[in-house]
Amino acid sequence: MKPRLFTPGPTPVPEETLLELAKPVTYHRTAEQKAALNEVMEDLKYVFQTKNPVIVLTSSGTGGMEAAVSNVLAPGQKAILLTAGRWGERWRGVLKAFGANLVIVEQPYGSAVDPQLLKEALEKNPDTVAVYATLSETSTGVGHDIEAYGKIVAGTKALLCVDSISGLGAMVCKTDEWQIDINVSGSQKALMMPPGLAYVSVSDKAWKVIESNTATRSFYFDLKRYKAKIAENDTPFTPANTLIKAQRLSLKRIRAEGIENLWARHAKMAEATRAAITAMGLKLFAQRPNNALTVIVVPEGIDGSATLKALEKQYGYKLADGQDNLKGQIWRLSHMGWCDPFDVLGALSALELTLLKSGFKLEPGAGVAAFQKKLAS
Amino acid sequence: MKPRLFTPGPTPVPEETLLELAKPVTYHRTAEQKAALNEVMEDLKYVFQTKNPVIVLTSSGTGGMEAAVSNVLAPGQKAILLTAGRWGERWRGVLKAFGANLVIVEQPYGSAVDPQLLKEALEKNPDTVAVYATLSETSTGVGHDIEAYGKIVAGTKALLCVDSISGLGAMVCKTDEWQIDINVSGSQKALMMPPGLAYVSVSDKAWKVIESNTATRSFYFDLKRYKAKIAENDTPFTPANTLIKAQRLSLKRIRAEGIENLWARHAKMAEATRAAITAMGLKLFAQRPNNALTVIVVPEGIDGSATLKALEKQYGYKLADGQDNLKGQIWRLSHMGWCDPFDVLGALSALELTLLKSGFKLEPGAGVAAFQKKLAS
Repeated sequence: MKPRLFTPGPTPVPEETLLELAKPVTYHRTAEQKAALNEVMEDLKYVFQTKNPVIVLTSSGTGGMEAAVSNVLAPGQKAILLTAGRWGERWRGVLKAFGANLVIVEQPYGSAVDPQLLKEALEKNPDTVAVYATLSETSTGVGHDIEAYGKIVAGTKALLCVDSISGLGAMVCKTDEWQIDINVSGSQKALMMPPGLAYVSVSDKAWKVIESNTATRSFYFDLKRYKAKIAENDTPFTPANTLIKAQRLSLKRIRAEGIENLWARHAKMAEATRAAITAMGLKLFAQRPNNALTVIVVPEGIDGSATLKALEKQYGYKLADGQDNLKGQIWRLSHMGWCDPFDVLGALSALELTLLKSGFKLEPGAGVAAFQKKLAS
Repeated sequence: MKPRLFTPGPTPVPEETLLELAKPVTYHRTAEQKAALNEVMEDLKYVFQTKNPVIVLTSSGTGGMEAAVSNVLAPGQKAILLTAGRWGERWRGVLKAFGANLVIVEQPYGSAVDPQLLKEALEKNPDTVAVYATLSETSTGVGHDIEAYGKIVAGTKALLCVDSISGLGAMVCKTDEWQIDINVSGSQKALMMPPGLAYVSVSDKAWKVIESNTATRSFYFDLKRYKAKIAENDTPFTPANTLIKAQRLSLKRIRAEGIENLWARHAKMAEATRAAITAMGLKLFAQRPNNALTVIVVPEGIDGSATLKALEKQYGYKLADGQDNLKGQIWRLSHMGWCDPFDVLGALSALELTLLKSGFKLEPGAGVAAFQKKLAS
């Protein structure tokens, strides 16, 4: 069977990007490398929809999240955390490590955090320095209403910091228009690259807070050190320079497609997938589903983890299981990045076949026909 | 002209390792990926010459240095810094960012820090928590006597933390025998990989300090989080999984050569290069030269930076200039990693030709003949 990757990160990478990674390694302080970093930073601005600098870090996305915490908050300062899943909990872990005074607005897994709850929390806590939120809660498939959060936070002195690691590019996210102060993304999701790079945009409002924060205990993730190098198209520390040159190619592909078309393609794939899942008699887990991935509730009587293993073994399709308590309870099917509707159609076909074999009652073709219907509409 | 990389990081990468990077991306939580990480961690133990775990971080080497500081020292605790170059200064930057109470043992660029000075500093400062040193001071070409430092520090309660980023593999470094508590290295030097991964070994003595340190303000570089995942051959955060799979191949190559042969090959290349440089009437910059690179003093009347540019433009050889105040004053020629004597011979030939063109008095062939003589001996 052909192996096919449908996990919500890492995601498939275009061949030309992969081949770039096989080229001989070059020195990282050259005009050529600086031009590549410049292009990447400019194209990231386009993808982020921001006029602010986008900083390139050599780290996982979590490193970018750490930068959004350690640069902003002095120990004991107040932060509001919006959490309804594992990635909200990742923010909590980072915030606790840096000694934040936490106000937690928590909702059950599968639901989204209502903007009204943020409004109330901010009113009760006018000394809040920053709000931490998640664009695509990949553990549940929920998309949060960052635009609404932005409207609420912008009226206060607090910063809005968003983890858009697995959403940016796959769903609409307008950093400046939505008034996101620090937006953190990563290479290995919709940006069509292997893991290893994190991206952080920083607004003027955020720079003011960062520059007045004298309590920073950070060196590698000290954003001021990166800012000082941006004008020279350089980095303060040796970057993963081959990854930067490869990211350049995947970003060029996004530029060529156009960001609105990218969003529309993901919206179409997500909508068609949701229609297929419903037509197969399955249920969606997310109350407010996003366009980066579809999260499916494992039906009663079916062993969720065993089904995924059979799907991969027999048909080559690699989906992701639920994490932590949700293991075996949900299936996570990514449709972001280097992925088109026909790729997803194949995954749904393989899922149908696997479910039929496991005795789940299903009209063969129900899912793929519903998918096709949405494509044709 | 064929481009040829002789910078002291990044260094050339074997073709089979590069080709691994062009393979389709896979999920990072699979049995296959765990087996790859396990092999990398085991082979790193061999390269480090340690029985202790070697932690794999997705970051530059500086991220590993930050881990060696932020996990060990609470703000205000005492650290001795041994510095005689830019990379000693990198330790200083990290230590200052984390609020260390610094005792600085400083020597001029080009010299090594005498172990006797460390002995005296430790005697005067019995409350020292850790000593920070550099194996290969790549800014000057100096190799430090880490073995001697280890003997001194082992008799105290302090930890010995070493930046071996650009030395490990190219020069003898026996982590356990030399009693190095935290040893930090990176992928892009003698380990024949692009940049993007840092490696950190931790002794039992160091774990005790780390585990009793409640002041840690770190999340991404919190070594305890990595330690908790080692038994499962996993990482706490999404790693640069394609780099790990590629590092596996370069480490296999080191295993096949054998660490003693690797050290001997680098020693031979370094010795022959030093002989060639001297025979060309040039001077070495390092008082205690190491085997990872040779640093050459730019002779009077020659424009150092212009010569390097001409060398690259005409013959394709990319050497490194001096950094900061040493720019134009020295040339840095790396002979580490995926590099054999015949590669270096070519670089010396090109350097001779370039110097001759710039009017430097030199008997053509003096350098390459001296190099060959050492090879034959």
